[in-house]
Amino acid sequence: MASSFGQILKITIFGESHAKGIGMTIDGLPAGLAIDNDEIKKAMQKRHGNSEISTERHENDEVEFVCGVFNNVTTGSPLTFIIYNTDVHSSSYKEGDVRPSHADLTNYIKYNGYNDYRGGGFSSGRITASFIVLGCICNQLLKKHNITICSRIYSIHGVFDDEINEKDVKNYLNLLDDDFPVISEKQKAAMINEIKNAKKANDSVGGVIESFIIGAPIGLGEPYFNSMESAISQLFFSIGGIKGIEFGDGFGLSNKFGSEVKDEIRLNNNNIEYLSNHNGGLNGGISNGDIIHLKTAIKPTSSFKQQFSTINIKDQENKTLLLDGRYDSCFVQRVLPVLNALLAYVVVDMLMAKESKNI
Amino acid sequence: MASSFGQILKITIFGESHAKGIGMTIDGLPAGLAIDNDEIKKAMQKRHGNSEISTERHENDEVEFVCGVFNNVTTGSPLTFIIYNTDVHSSSYKEGDVRPSHADLTNYIKYNGYNDYRGGGFSSGRITASFIVLGCICNQLLKKHNITICSRIYSIHGVFDDEINEKDVKNYLNLLDDDFPVISEKQKAAMINEIKNAKKANDSVGGVIESFIIGAPIGLGEPYFNSMESAISQLFFSIGGIKGIEFGDGFGLSNKFGSEVKDEIRLNNNNIEYLSNHNGGLNGGISNGDIIHLKTAIKPTSSFKQQFSTINIKDQENKTLLLDGRYDSCFVQRVLPVLNALLAYVVVDMLMAKESKNI
Amino acid sequence: MASSFGQILKITIFGESHAKGIGMTIDGLPAGLAIDNDEIKKAMQKRHGNSEISTERHENDEVEFVCGVFNNVTTGSPLTFIIYNTDVHSSSYKEGDVRPSHADLTNYIKYNGYNDYRGGGFSSGRITASFIVLGCICNQLLKKHNITICSRIYSIHGVFDDEINEKDVKNYLNLLDDDFPVISEKQKAAMINEIKNAKKANDSVGGVIESFIIGAPIGLGEPYFNSMESAISQLFFSIGGIKGIEFGDGFGLSNKFGSEVKDEIRLNNNNIEYLSNHNGGLNGGISNGDIIHLKTAIKPTSSFKQQFSTINIKDQENKTLLLDGRYDSCFVQRVLPVLNALLAYVVVDMLMAKESKNI
Amino acid sequence: MASSFGQILKITIFGESHAKGIGMTIDGLPAGLAIDNDEIKKAMQKRHGNSEISTERHENDEVEFVCGVFNNVTTGSPLTFIIYNTDVHSSSYKEGDVRPSHADLTNYIKYNGYNDYRGGGFSSGRITASFIVLGCICNQLLKKHNITICSRIYSIHGVFDDEINEKDVKNYLNLLDDDFPVISEKQKAAMINEIKNAKKANDSVGGVIESFIIGAPIGLGEPYFNSMESAISQLFFSIGGIKGIEFGDGFGLSNKFGSEVKDEIRLNNNNIEYLSNHNGGLNGGISNGDIIHLKTAIKPTSSFKQQFSTINIKDQENKTLLLDGRYDSCFVQRVLPVLNALLAYVVVDMLMAKESKNI
Repeated sequence: MASSFGQILKITIFGESHAKGIGMTIDGLPAGLAIDNDEIKKAMQKRHGNSEISTERHENDEVEFVCGVFNNVTTGSPLTFIIYNTDVHSSSYKEGDVRPSHADLTNYIKYNGYNDYRGGGFSSGRITASFIVLGCICNQLLKKHNITICSRIYSIHGVFDDEINEKDVKNYLNLLDDDFPVISEKQKAAMINEIKNAKKANDSVGGVIESFIIGAPIGLGEPYFNSMESAISQLFFSIGGIKGIEFGDGFGLSNKFGSEVKDEIRLNNNNIEYLSNHNGGLNGGISNGDIIHLKTAIKPTSSFKQQFSTINIKDQENKTLLLDGRYDSCFVQRVLPVLNALLAYVVVDMLMAKESKNI
Repeated sequence: MASSFGQILKITIFGESHAKGIGMTIDGLPAGLAIDNDEIKKAMQKRHGNSEISTERHENDEVEFVCGVFNNVTTGSPLTFIIYNTDVHSSSYKEGDVRPSHADLTNYIKYNGYNDYRGGGFSSGRITASFIVLGCICNQLLKKHNITICSRIYSIHGVFDDEINEKDVKNYLNLLDDDFPVISEKQKAAMINEIKNAKKANDSVGGVIESFIIGAPIGLGEPYFNSMESAISQLFFSIGGIKGIEFGDGFGLSNKFGSEVKDEIRLNNNNIEYLSNHNGGLNGGISNGDIIHLKTAIKPTSSFKQQFSTINIKDQENKTLLLDGRYDSCFVQRVLPVLNALLAYVVVDMLMAKESKNI
Repeated sequence: MASSFGQILKITIFGESHAKGIGMTIDGLPAGLAIDNDEIKKAMQKRHGNSEISTERHENDEVEFVCGVFNNVTTGSPLTFIIYNTDVHSSSYKEGDVRPSHADLTNYIKYNGYNDYRGGGFSSGRITASFIVLGCICNQLLKKHNITICSRIYSIHGVFDDEINEKDVKNYLNLLDDDFPVISEKQKAAMINEIKNAKKANDSVGGVIESFIIGAPIGLGEPYFNSMESAISQLFFSIGGIKGIEFGDGFGLSNKFGSEVKDEIRLNNNNIEYLSNHNGGLNGGISNGDIIHLKTAIKPTSSFKQQFSTINIKDQENKTLLLDGRYDSCFVQRVLPVLNALLAYVVVDMLMAKESKNI
Repeated sequence: MASSFGQILKITIFGESHAKGIGMTIDGLPAGLAIDNDEIKKAMQKRHGNSEISTERHENDEVEFVCGVFNNVTTGSPLTFIIYNTDVHSSSYKEGDVRPSHADLTNYIKYNGYNDYRGGGFSSGRITASFIVLGCICNQLLKKHNITICSRIYSIHGVFDDEINEKDVKNYLNLLDDDFPVISEKQKAAMINEIKNAKKANDSVGGVIESFIIGAPIGLGEPYFNSMESAISQLFFSIGGIKGIEFGDGFGLSNKFGSEVKDEIRLNNNNIEYLSNHNGGLNGGISNGDIIHLKTAIKPTSSFKQQFSTINIKDQENKTLLLDGRYDSCFVQRVLPVLNALLAYVVVDMLMAKESKNI
């Protein structure tokens, strides 16, 4: 199902950037789960970006629950919410104009020219706002299991945050709650500088996000098509602009000897301990009890205020296009809470799959 | 569905390394498709590895078609095949012994100790033999569409093949048909040397595979959970030992300015041409008509003849384990035909999804 | 997926009787399909019932397309619509009160008391309004294939319509477009009389609907879990109050000799002709080119203005409950357009599955 | 997925009547479940029919577990078994010959003439042998929940078993364990007589099976597409020859007043009691704690030793066909254990779905 996902907790997304709105249906939630509207607002604000470096499109991002919530708790029936589009400037978009590296051309051909081309239509990053709501609901469940999910900006345009010992991530949770979460204040300033400079130059930059799942029990994930890596990467690559993912030491493993990256094990007072975690907390696709650890590569925004050589596919002609819509020069910090939300969702779905066997 | 995959052409895998056999059911194939048994044997041989550097387990890998094939063409009903396990040495495996970085511990906990631990059970790389058969069947369909899939070994333990211009891949198809496909003869020799040295040192090495899909029409893939990247990564991460994937310039994009990686477009005699392909032939998750291009990171084999500090989970005790089973010191070259097969399958499934709209 | 359905054209339903609204997401529609709003209004009106015998709840049933429609044609992205609830009288419903034969008790237990009990919540017949919209969209596609779907009221409370020769159904299409479609005017009057009498007596009645799919090509449906009978019955039994379904001669076949119900075949100028149609146009779950033919049993409305011995499950006490909400004394005529809509949908989904093989 | 089914416990069927064999993959079983091979043999024998009235095809029906079972308990990995075809007489079948009311014509057209026409191919009733194995495995789980499933032959060719009070079914469990389960010895003899007479007359007869699920907790099933009725009917209509299904009083409800069939409720020492069960233990698609109760109509075997007017679709010619293969004159008693097996499976899948919410 192209716009649905999930083993047991199924989601279906919908919306277009300049249609009435966007939203999601979540099917399979336990009944009686409280909705924390403050948490949702806070997370939505993070995705929106509240600093000077973020989007010029200002959406209220008010979440309207159509059904599935009664007296502020889930009813167990499908939960559908809508986020209405209120701040749309459709005049920036001309039918058939292809913004290079965007989905304009692919969608035009795929949908025979009937796609809603305004603002990227269904391919707009705006759709990801729905994941934020999903993440907040799932976090309510994760709290009961003492599972924590967090991410930091690992690099922006080649400026890297300080290396940290994975085991220490727990000590940085407050820092990581920031809307531009970086461990080193100095590197954070340098990263923001990169973004500002790009903006001044009418250019854009990308970066890498590092994510952690702390406290997942052994046994989440299935050996093949629903391995933890499979589920996470399937979800992450749903998001425009994500071009790479690696688990544990990832690509770095390809240059190492096996003997350098064996994650040896010992029992310490009946607790399983790993002497290292080059595999990112996953063996055979399944959580091994250690911290789950991954990195995600985000490309520079494909839109920036420059002239592009391109075509109008409807008119079948070459043209030069100046992209002067309202764009972020970098959307790494905006994607970060979306990744956290998707990780929360994956873990909940897998916890439910695990639980289903206990009959 | 944990062991099934596919939008329209659905596969279900099964098997365990030391059970009677492994196999697959393919449901949704068009009727009348010829099975090319020679092609299957040839591809199976590549996965087996016929050089001195590959596995010491020698399976016939004879494919028995249980149903779905009649007079050597597909009937349109579910096609099931079995590959019997014939060369099993179960005595190498002791219940509860955890080989570090393998799925022994995760499976033991997940399945309450009832998993078939011999040879990794269902988590064994042996399961991937079934993908080879799938790939051969799908290639029959791709030929009709002039779509070609190929891969090369991009690096082994830090030894890299020569850079090539993506557009030139077509010229190397003969070379890439090799069972250790590398463009540069010199680098190939160096890579094989790395593997041999690792073996001598009772160690292991990994590498990176670069894959290409040539000739895919514009419009394959769906915007979100079945984006081309989502489908490919979900499948690839099903395979043990794969720890990273990137599309186009991938992680490299995170260090670039947007202006350096814009894939501008022009019409040339009514043909759409891209001036560059940093996005790997995919925009918004959908094929854009250019070559689809990705890299996959494979870790060094987790088994090699050394002593490992580990535990026996059943006996709940620390122990040292010497891994002296029959292992490859590097399985990059063995995974490569599996990746090709999975790519062929993804493309066929997406062609079918595309076709379904033409009612 | 509990609230989703479909092989290729996937639907997801949502809503609760007294929540903000109800609706549906349709994923996988071809792009460029025109939305016929007049047709939707007309069909919605039929489901609403415009005669004196139907519901006292008066909803506008205005369909708001949230996304997936642009310039009044489908974009190819998920199409979501909402029908807002405007005429809700929630005071008729007390938490924990169990209306016998309704889903009050089962939902209360299933959802630990968190279900939205007002008006039956997600189990309300109101949800079926969404199917009407789906049916209208699918009918646009069926027109291109010259496939016609129609139904008649076969019986109400033991009053039967005239028997007709299946082959003659085409001659009655105008009649069957009525909002109380019965062939015989006399029997129609008698049926309506039954309903009125039931209403006067503060009681309710049910009936049987007979449905026909005319013009389906040979080959729709799959041999097992997606046989035409499987798909239709799965959908029909989604609707509250449907308690039986039979294809062709159905239960009547159990009393016949095989020799009485063999549907012999002949070629007549290269056309396949059946000498009879006891199997309802389906062999082995697949359309055989003859008229597809089925009957559906609908129970009398479970609510009517009488005292019921029942319980309040929350208070855990026996009680007597007077049901004096706004109910139909018979909802056969209201369900009929919903069945037609579901049949249209099933056929479209199967046409798409058929088309997908043509790669 | 045409040949797969299940929310959480997923099955995939495969096989053709005259291929190497038939079988099934079951994915999602809890690990550690013992396989009771005696139970499987016994149930398989019932489906085979051990009396003089059953099939002349004598298959060993030996079940070979390919994987998923280790030391005779489930491993938690996909369980695949194969039942080899050993007693095939393919010479009875000529390519293109259409046996009326069978799937010969529909399959020929659907699969462009490539289907395995011998013995009905994938559409053969032989495929249902796999369901028996599934049922035995599921029954192991149901025992833990004190859920009992049983069926009786309600009628054969118009000869009806005695009416029984649903509540008394439990007293007949021994009788219902018979391979021709009928309450009344006298009626049983009359039914068998009907079958023998049909056989003598080279004709066939059908009947009705009544099934009961005893002990299901409140809350199984989902409100719409996975309602208990939807799931059961989808599965039952997978089986060739089933043409009708009804729950509770079914079609009989269509002739009743609402006041005659209201299933009133009371608390009796904190236990929920129903004063009647016209709805068959299901409200809103969900089990209400009472006995789940349904009837299934089976048509007379479509094959019997007579001349049929039909066509050869390959040669495009009219012809007369004498059906003299090895057929049952009645297969009601052979389908009965298959229905029991499918009911066991549905209940287990729903128990798992229920359990999944307990995170």
